[in-house]
Amino acid sequence: MVEEVRRLLLGRRLRSVEAQDQRLTKTRALGAFGLDALSSVAYGPNEILYVLILAGAVGTRFSLPIALAIAALLAIVVTSYRQTLFAYPNGGGSYTVARENLGTKAGLLAAAALMVDYLATVAVSVTAGVEALIALAPGLDAYRVPLDVGCIVAIMLVNLRGVREAGAFFVLPTYVFLGSMALLMGWGLLRLVTGDLPHLHARPLPATEGVTLFLLLRAFAGGCTAMTGVEAIANGVPLFEDPEPRNAARTLTTLAVLLGALVLGVTVLGNAIGAVPSERAGLIAQIGHAVAGGGPLFWLVQLSTALVLLLAANTPFNGFPLLAAIMAQDWYLPRQFVHRGLRLSYYNGILVIGTLAIGLVVVFGGSTHALIPLYAVGVFLCFTLSQAGMVRHWLRVREPRWRIKLAINGLGALVTGLVTAIVVIVKFPEGAWLIALIVPALVVLFARIHRYYQQAGQEVRVWRIRPPEMQRCVHTVLVPIADLNRPAVESLVYACSISERVTAVHICLSDEEKARFRSQWAAWGTDVPLVEIHSPYRLIVEPLLDYIDERNRQEPGELLTVVLPELVPMHWWENALHNQIALRMKLALFTRPGTVVTSVPYHLQC
Amino acid sequence: MVEEVRRLLLGRRLRSVEAQDQRLTKTRALGAFGLDALSSVAYGPNEILYVLILAGAVGTRFSLPIALAIAALLAIVVTSYRQTLFAYPNGGGSYTVARENLGTKAGLLAAAALMVDYLATVAVSVTAGVEALIALAPGLDAYRVPLDVGCIVAIMLVNLRGVREAGAFFVLPTYVFLGSMALLMGWGLLRLVTGDLPHLHARPLPATEGVTLFLLLRAFAGGCTAMTGVEAIANGVPLFEDPEPRNAARTLTTLAVLLGALVLGVTVLGNAIGAVPSERAGLIAQIGHAVAGGGPLFWLVQLSTALVLLLAANTPFNGFPLLAAIMAQDWYLPRQFVHRGLRLSYYNGILVIGTLAIGLVVVFGGSTHALIPLYAVGVFLCFTLSQAGMVRHWLRVREPRWRIKLAINGLGALVTGLVTAIVVIVKFPEGAWLIALIVPALVVLFARIHRYYQQAGQEVRVWRIRPPEMQRCVHTVLVPIADLNRPAVESLVYACSISERVTAVHICLSDEEKARFRSQWAAWGTDVPLVEIHSPYRLIVEPLLDYIDERNRQEPGELLTVVLPELVPMHWWENALHNQIALRMKLALFTRPGTVVTSVPYHLQC
Repeated sequence: MVEEVRRLLLGRRLRSVEAQDQRLTKTRALGAFGLDALSSVAYGPNEILYVLILAGAVGTRFSLPIALAIAALLAIVVTSYRQTLFAYPNGGGSYTVARENLGTKAGLLAAAALMVDYLATVAVSVTAGVEALIALAPGLDAYRVPLDVGCIVAIMLVNLRGVREAGAFFVLPTYVFLGSMALLMGWGLLRLVTGDLPHLHARPLPATEGVTLFLLLRAFAGGCTAMTGVEAIANGVPLFEDPEPRNAARTLTTLAVLLGALVLGVTVLGNAIGAVPSERAGLIAQIGHAVAGGGPLFWLVQLSTALVLLLAANTPFNGFPLLAAIMAQDWYLPRQFVHRGLRLSYYNGILVIGTLAIGLVVVFGGSTHALIPLYAVGVFLCFTLSQAGMVRHWLRVREPRWRIKLAINGLGALVTGLVTAIVVIVKFPEGAWLIALIVPALVVLFARIHRYYQQAGQEVRVWRIRPPEMQRCVHTVLVPIADLNRPAVESLVYACSISERVTAVHICLSDEEKARFRSQWAAWGTDVPLVEIHSPYRLIVEPLLDYIDERNRQEPGELLTVVLPELVPMHWWENALHNQIALRMKLALFTRPGTVVTSVPYHLQC
Repeated sequence: MVEEVRRLLLGRRLRSVEAQDQRLTKTRALGAFGLDALSSVAYGPNEILYVLILAGAVGTRFSLPIALAIAALLAIVVTSYRQTLFAYPNGGGSYTVARENLGTKAGLLAAAALMVDYLATVAVSVTAGVEALIALAPGLDAYRVPLDVGCIVAIMLVNLRGVREAGAFFVLPTYVFLGSMALLMGWGLLRLVTGDLPHLHARPLPATEGVTLFLLLRAFAGGCTAMTGVEAIANGVPLFEDPEPRNAARTLTTLAVLLGALVLGVTVLGNAIGAVPSERAGLIAQIGHAVAGGGPLFWLVQLSTALVLLLAANTPFNGFPLLAAIMAQDWYLPRQFVHRGLRLSYYNGILVIGTLAIGLVVVFGGSTHALIPLYAVGVFLCFTLSQAGMVRHWLRVREPRWRIKLAINGLGALVTGLVTAIVVIVKFPEGAWLIALIVPALVVLFARIHRYYQQAGQEVRVWRIRPPEMQRCVHTVLVPIADLNRPAVESLVYACSISERVTAVHICLSDEEKARFRSQWAAWGTDVPLVEIHSPYRLIVEPLLDYIDERNRQEPGELLTVVLPELVPMHWWENALHNQIALRMKLALFTRPGTVVTSVPYHLQC
């Protein structure tokens, strides 16, 4: 029955050879890989406003300059990344580039940053998506966290089934979103030019802070979250149609232009209508209200925003498990991450990121604004490591025109490094400290796991061991018996069949009980020696362990096998009616070196 | 370390021979066994008032007649019980008397009723005790449930240590309580006679119901809870000084007189001061306020009330585990209840009643009034079964003057049976339905458990089996191997040492992996045959099970042993870095008949 539910939820099992991939046109690739980047426009410009509003009307005047700075940063990063595509046509994720060029430690750092980034992407995208829905139906605000959790669970299930990211389901919404946003921007700019655009908030907001450099940097750091997701194409180069790097580069440029235009458009219109940041209606929702008056276009924009955000939350469910599998393959994470499930999905990775994301969303009460400070650090750390890796790459390769390429990646590394530092510092009290703790901790964990596997592997390696049939060992068998019943007899029979040296052990709980057992044993008439252990404190497992210790002391070289009679009832709940001493003994013996444990099951038929 | 904490909390271990008992004088016995009965005056009269107040001032006039009816009932029950003491000097609990005279089913019914009664005693006594404290410090009301739970946990711990009920700690508080209550009653009656007693509630309460027979019966049923605990002496006869039955009977009579006087005194004074029932200040607390003006006597009464109630909550922690042990000895409950812990306490019974009581208190929000309807049914069912058993006893024994004795017990059975019916009917909607469900369900459960043990016992009984050394069986050993490492080699060596017929089994997850393993195996050079199983869906346990099924089909008589190499890391958390396939295999094989499982542990040293 469990199997049937699994099949219904997760689909039929897939053979290993069914793992394959399909090539993508530029249009499909933009839809599939652009999701994450484009959807960040739903929270990036919002975050700029959250900070600037603290300085009142004067502060909000700086939103356009900051948006322009972010667009410039985007141009630098994308130019820099284009070179990665050509240099790493087989996929140039930060982990690969950093590890190959900067060494293992940088690779682990990139991996840790990426993992944190993936996790934050899920949490931020889902909460932002749900917030886009709340803007449509404010009554949903009360169910924010359950909705977030429900979405994550649904995404987990879909991914456990296995999902092809390039399907129409992923490509179409991106274009609907782009189309509806273009309409909204166009109409809004038209109304702005004609002076017809309504102002939402008449009263100027009181300023609680002055316009300082720190305030502007905080606004900039918040806005940088709009850039999350632009690295997705670099990971996916091999999935493009031939010529892969060229097609990928063109798609990346298109993506950057579209994203830049969206960020600037939203900022300009948001300024024009005098929007204020809110958890119940984001910037886009306020623009939709002002421009389209809450009509059909507003609904279309909100629904497609919510959809692309939720689909963007899906991306890490591919990226994280794959990264975890690669790391586990390299022995930096538990090997369990390498296994693929019946549907070929890396189920352990999916379960881990899903569970962590649910925890994060619950702890932060489903607030995108609260989660944002956890976000940008990982992203920009990855950018920096990737670009810095490219710098080393050019120094090593020195192909034609390597100096220019070096300069471009060098600029990229410098700028993204600077932004990383800014983000860590200005967002530190709001949550970046958590990332500053977790990322190094992860690196240490990876290294520890690696060392453990190395040592354990060393230890279990076989060298110069004769074949097993050459190494007969003499061993002794102990059979603990509480009562002379069929399970006990079967265990004794089994024990006698594997060794000449069998001893039955009886733990005596009282004198009467001892006499009763002894007479039973005598009546049975066997040559197997019986050892009686008196247990004044009514313990059963401990006296047996003491006896084994004593034997080990007396005959150190002896290989001891404990044969345990085990009663298996027909129904699991009937186990409550048995004392499970065999189980307790197995647990106790498991941690003792050199004792083999054999379970001889006796299956009850009643 | 766990062991040290256990010793600190629970004390040193005790030998089985240290189990002993000590005899009690009448005075000590009244203190020890009277706790439960006397403390019920803290909630019994309260419950009468809770119902009568619904009919306003007119209703409360009936409280004295009802209290008199309860006193009369008490007289009948105690007269009836005195005869049990003489007939069963070795302890005449309801279970014993009912089982011996009315048969197994009645005995099980009595046992079920007793268990429910024990559980309700804990819950009601603890909540009432905490309420007595709340009357002193109303601020504690907010911590009602945590306080209740804390008290139950403390009582559990004390009982796990093992406790001698007759110690001064149990005897003294009863007399302090009796003394302070006597002072309060005397002073109160004096002030009442001199017309000096203040009236608490000037305004007459509005009546929401008329004075009907049903209302009076409900008030009576509530008041009957004042009689809980009078059967305690019947269980404890063997602990009295010689002549046991006579001393026990005198103590019982004294107890009944004191309890009757308390119930009547509280009712009269409660009426006189115009008390209204409340969860924050019980009847005794209101009398204390009115009579002693919240002074030292008030505090003494409340503190001693709280103390006797909490000590009364301790009684079931002796009674329940003992009853469970007797039932388990007779195979009506899981055998685990028979075991005595290191401190000679029946720890399983203590843990079960404590946990259930905590659950009950939490579900009912720590309200005594809400818990009361669960209480009286079990008590009166026990009374009835016990008296009815005595009727059969006299019919069977026919000793001198048996007719009079028969008449007395017959009257007792009739009256208590009638009260049981009344309580079930009038308290049905308030919670008695739960007891009406649980008690029969428990009887069915006992019978089922008994049948299971009988069948299982039949099945494992040994008859006409030759000694083990005579029954050599041929068996085959399978060794599943993932990798040719040391644990695998040690398992193979072990397998070869117990059988001539060893087969290594390798689950192939991919063609590359298969080729790699095959070359490893060939390089090793062993004569052990290798079976390769292709697993296209990447499963490991299931293909092995399928292979075993197949072998079983081909050679039905063959005894199969699966030898599992198991890696045991130094620290438990390192288990997270291993895939636990051996564990999963053990679990899967455990439920298959006829397969022996052997774990060959390999202990890592790193």
